[in-house]
Amino acid sequence: MYSVLKQSIRPRLLATHNQFRTMITAQAVLYTQHGEPKDVLFTQSFEIDDDNLAPNEVIVKTLGSPVNPSDINQIQGVYPSKPAKTTGFGTTEPAAPCGNEGLFEVIKVGSNVSSLEAGDWVIPSHVNFGTWRTHALGNDDDFIKLPNPAQSKANGKPNGLTINQGATISVNPLTAYLMLTHYVKLTPGKDWFIQNGGTSAVGKYASQIGKLLNFNSISVIRDRPNLDEVVASLKELGATQVITEDQNNSREFGPTIKEWIKQSGGEAKLALNCVGGKSSTGIARKLNNNGLMLTYGGMSFQPVTIPTSLYIFKNFTSAGFWVTELLKNNKELKTSTLNQIIAWYEEGKLTDAKSIETLYDGTKPLHELYQDGVANSKDGKQLITY
Amino acid sequence: MYSVLKQSIRPRLLATHNQFRTMITAQAVLYTQHGEPKDVLFTQSFEIDDDNLAPNEVIVKTLGSPVNPSDINQIQGVYPSKPAKTTGFGTTEPAAPCGNEGLFEVIKVGSNVSSLEAGDWVIPSHVNFGTWRTHALGNDDDFIKLPNPAQSKANGKPNGLTINQGATISVNPLTAYLMLTHYVKLTPGKDWFIQNGGTSAVGKYASQIGKLLNFNSISVIRDRPNLDEVVASLKELGATQVITEDQNNSREFGPTIKEWIKQSGGEAKLALNCVGGKSSTGIARKLNNNGLMLTYGGMSFQPVTIPTSLYIFKNFTSAGFWVTELLKNNKELKTSTLNQIIAWYEEGKLTDAKSIETLYDGTKPLHELYQDGVANSKDGKQLITY
Repeated sequence: MYSVLKQSIRPRLLATHNQFRTMITAQAVLYTQHGEPKDVLFTQSFEIDDDNLAPNEVIVKTLGSPVNPSDINQIQGVYPSKPAKTTGFGTTEPAAPCGNEGLFEVIKVGSNVSSLEAGDWVIPSHVNFGTWRTHALGNDDDFIKLPNPAQSKANGKPNGLTINQGATISVNPLTAYLMLTHYVKLTPGKDWFIQNGGTSAVGKYASQIGKLLNFNSISVIRDRPNLDEVVASLKELGATQVITEDQNNSREFGPTIKEWIKQSGGEAKLALNCVGGKSSTGIARKLNNNGLMLTYGGMSFQPVTIPTSLYIFKNFTSAGFWVTELLKNNKELKTSTLNQIIAWYEEGKLTDAKSIETLYDGTKPLHELYQDGVANSKDGKQLITY
Repeated sequence: MYSVLKQSIRPRLLATHNQFRTMITAQAVLYTQHGEPKDVLFTQSFEIDDDNLAPNEVIVKTLGSPVNPSDINQIQGVYPSKPAKTTGFGTTEPAAPCGNEGLFEVIKVGSNVSSLEAGDWVIPSHVNFGTWRTHALGNDDDFIKLPNPAQSKANGKPNGLTINQGATISVNPLTAYLMLTHYVKLTPGKDWFIQNGGTSAVGKYASQIGKLLNFNSISVIRDRPNLDEVVASLKELGATQVITEDQNNSREFGPTIKEWIKQSGGEAKLALNCVGGKSSTGIARKLNNNGLMLTYGGMSFQPVTIPTSLYIFKNFTSAGFWVTELLKNNKELKTSTLNQIIAWYEEGKLTDAKSIETLYDGTKPLHELYQDGVANSKDGKQLITY
């Protein structure tokens, strides 16, 4: 996290040489000890010297950053990938920054930076950057450029990215796209994938991307009072079929699914599991021989449970998916995947998962907005905008 | 199963042309309906004309054939791979032959057969051949040749194969060898595999083959009154470490295993699971990042249960192993694997899993010997010799 280390120490030293130049006063949400976000978060002010950029440095201001489940787990200390603690924000005790996804606008670049200019939209190249903050100082290679709306328009695209699309592009759409394309070759127009968590953000992206790639899909969702309405909306997004967890677990319903697959002339080759427990058993059973299930979440808090016979006699394989690890050392794959998602957004072919947006206007300390965001996450994904 | 179809129909037609030539009267154990072996097996006599072999035909007599769990499951109708039913043994209703593993001696070959001669030892090339029988008529490519003891001696080998080694070579030793070599590259002298079912036949082969290939291993076994003695015998066979299921499930014991692995300079990369349930969870947890577990059995009748976090954050993969399917269309792999096992037997480096042998002497119908074998399988693997 050298970009974090720099951002207050160097400006402070410079401050002794020139008391009269402008400084940006920035805010970041930090924690020194793991715990529940409502107990351990605080807002730290720090300064960024915008008159003395090193040649490769870039100053950005935040446009928006979401509250993701993994951000909460990082603060709780139960997530394997963790930001380093630092005194670089000016705290006495070493503290870690919060947030992994976010959209920034470049406000100034150093003399050597040719890939970025003021006004460009960027996202962090890596996780653990700390996106719950108003501004950041980094190097050019800490950021990946996205087209801003003016640039999309100049390129003749029907749409520019929204702040929500840019701020939430790194995890869910990439997860859905990579799970559908990076492991198993599905034959367009024929083969099927099946997923549980069909109403989750990744689930909705997978249904849409599946349709864009002409893959057949089955989305498993929980029963609910407005089931018909939700089924219709998921089919509208792109799901070929939508079934309930009861149907997923039912022996009687199995032949119906087999018939769908048979009629298509393809096979069910891929399952996407973000639930675990019985739900994972159910979707695994639907696969044809040599099927693969990718587990990317465990919303039921139950382990993944698979009958021995599937492994031995159907050559079933169960593996994991973690977008952070897959893309950590594969910038090319990250760039090509991002470019595909951006293109679909610009063409209006992909709908983003809506977030509940709260504007930071300075009336409340920044960390309280994110604490509220954590508390309200049960109602939907929370995005703090600036 | 064309070799089965031929063996009585053709001799019967020929019999109308020559009433005076010799015929071999053979016995085979068959069933017409699935069920418990004690209820559905019968012995069928059939004749093989040994004076009118077609150019590629081979007549063999049986030296020994074991009772395997999969043979029992086939008769019960709960095994996915099944022999075709035929009237070729002379039954009115179509009937299926029993037994998949067995050792035969060639007694006569057709004029075109150059790869085999009388006295050679052979095993079936494929499953579902029907090995619970006294004789068989097949084509030369229905059989794979093994060295008989005289041939091993002539080649200067210290040992010839025993009937037990030949009759049980196709499943357990191949399963152990292929699981250890075909999927993950373990670095000799450093890397580890961990297996449950350490006292099973495959488990003992895996410990021995692991030592021959210089892989470190941990065998998990159930606690028992003579634990120390069994641990000592498994270490003598080749297991680096032997632990109990309680230790496998214990959080407190985990660091001891981590330390063993750390001291070796290697990683635990492969788990072999024939138990399922908690035991499979335990061995999966011992693997380093990017580990693979192969499931080849489910002795606990519990499903394979894996925490979501292993999949996502340790990139764990769980797959199946079925020797029948792997080798079905890969004769080259089967031959090279068999040759390695044969070489180790001939050099006295590999000890076979002992069977409880019963000689067929004609005093009881053949199917009763196999019915007794099924009933006595709880005491150890049963081999009927001829």
